[in-house]
Amino acid sequence: MSNEKKKAIVLLSGGIDSATTLAIAIRDGYEPCAITFNYGQRHVSELDAAKRVAESMGVKRRFVADIDLRSIGGSALTDSIDVPKNRSHKHIVSGIPVTYVPARNTIFLSFALAWAEVLNAHDIFIGVTAIDYSGYPDCRPEFIKTFEELANVATREGVSGHHFTIHAPLIHMTKAEIIRSGFSLGVDYSLTHSCYDPLPDGLACGKCDSCHLRKKGFAEAEIVDPTIYAQ
Amino acid sequence: MSNEKKKAIVLLSGGIDSATTLAIAIRDGYEPCAITFNYGQRHVSELDAAKRVAESMGVKRRFVADIDLRSIGGSALTDSIDVPKNRSHKHIVSGIPVTYVPARNTIFLSFALAWAEVLNAHDIFIGVTAIDYSGYPDCRPEFIKTFEELANVATREGVSGHHFTIHAPLIHMTKAEIIRSGFSLGVDYSLTHSCYDPLPDGLACGKCDSCHLRKKGFAEAEIVDPTIYAQ
Repeated sequence: MSNEKKKAIVLLSGGIDSATTLAIAIRDGYEPCAITFNYGQRHVSELDAAKRVAESMGVKRRFVADIDLRSIGGSALTDSIDVPKNRSHKHIVSGIPVTYVPARNTIFLSFALAWAEVLNAHDIFIGVTAIDYSGYPDCRPEFIKTFEELANVATREGVSGHHFTIHAPLIHMTKAEIIRSGFSLGVDYSLTHSCYDPLPDGLACGKCDSCHLRKKGFAEAEIVDPTIYAQ
Repeated sequence: MSNEKKKAIVLLSGGIDSATTLAIAIRDGYEPCAITFNYGQRHVSELDAAKRVAESMGVKRRFVADIDLRSIGGSALTDSIDVPKNRSHKHIVSGIPVTYVPARNTIFLSFALAWAEVLNAHDIFIGVTAIDYSGYPDCRPEFIKTFEELANVATREGVSGHHFTIHAPLIHMTKAEIIRSGFSLGVDYSLTHSCYDPLPDGLACGKCDSCHLRKKGFAEAEIVDPTIYAQ
């Protein structure tokens, strides 16, 4: 009998949610294989954060996929559209913002699925949340459920009787609950990055939607936010 | 009232099937926007063929997406695994061959979906066929149907009440039927490329599964095959 752990692919962006998801995959007994996307995001500090987070949790297998979403366009996260600042919480959580990247999680999960099939893994972890989620359609339970169905008809593994599971352990959690959960699992949030529009030296702007949700999450979790914000 | 045609995204690889699909999208009254993938395929002659085919049909908007599936691995089409040669037809159409690229059509359609959303298009054409299809799971009607469902829950457009349609007009056609159909629409098949393992000068090998299906298709359609094969 093999003592090998079951492999799982974990989408790791370097933010709070994906770092917590990685810790949950490890807690659940998986050997995590972390996939990170270099997609032409303006906030490339994410990539360094993903590396630091993976190293801090002993991830042995990492894959950075280069995909040029900037050429496709259509988002403030990849184009020269201004990232909104100082929006109210109510405004942030209603509607779909300009930071929406068309079909981003569909593309990310497709690559994760391809890598899963090559590594003979049947579990994929993604840190989406439908609460405090800034209105992205591809962060909802319907999306995750439908992608799981797709994974099982799209692949050699799926049609051979194996079953792919898309795990979204944070989907019904608030940012504060996520932070508390990760904190209890030993996640070092000082290594993570959230800001959509960091300063040239990498400092978080403190004013974009993502900084706002991060600050609010730590405050509500009653845990000290290790982040240094420019404002 | 606008006389503008409705845009459609057409996945264009440069082979017989995608060239025919492009002709069908044009026949159906769409303004085609062609997306081609540079995915580290061994048969890069495909990319030149896609350009020639698009130009011959007056496509105004083209997008070549660079995505590195070679780093993910797992296929004879991107890795240094031998492309099978001289297999019998029965052998070709049974089982999933080593030329299967994990999750390829899922990845391709995800990019097409992102581009569709940016261009405000709601129709995507893909030239998959479940007949003579070399056993790829992501060429079956179940896959197309499930991806269409996904498109409509994954995107801003989908949740805003628009409806994405994935058109797979060849799905129930044999290669001979596809060739006859394209021939009647004026497709110049001499511009297309099928071979999985072309010679250094671009000549089709004549022995791989794809060359076999091409030869057989023209023979059955009783149309002269314009291809020059090495053997």
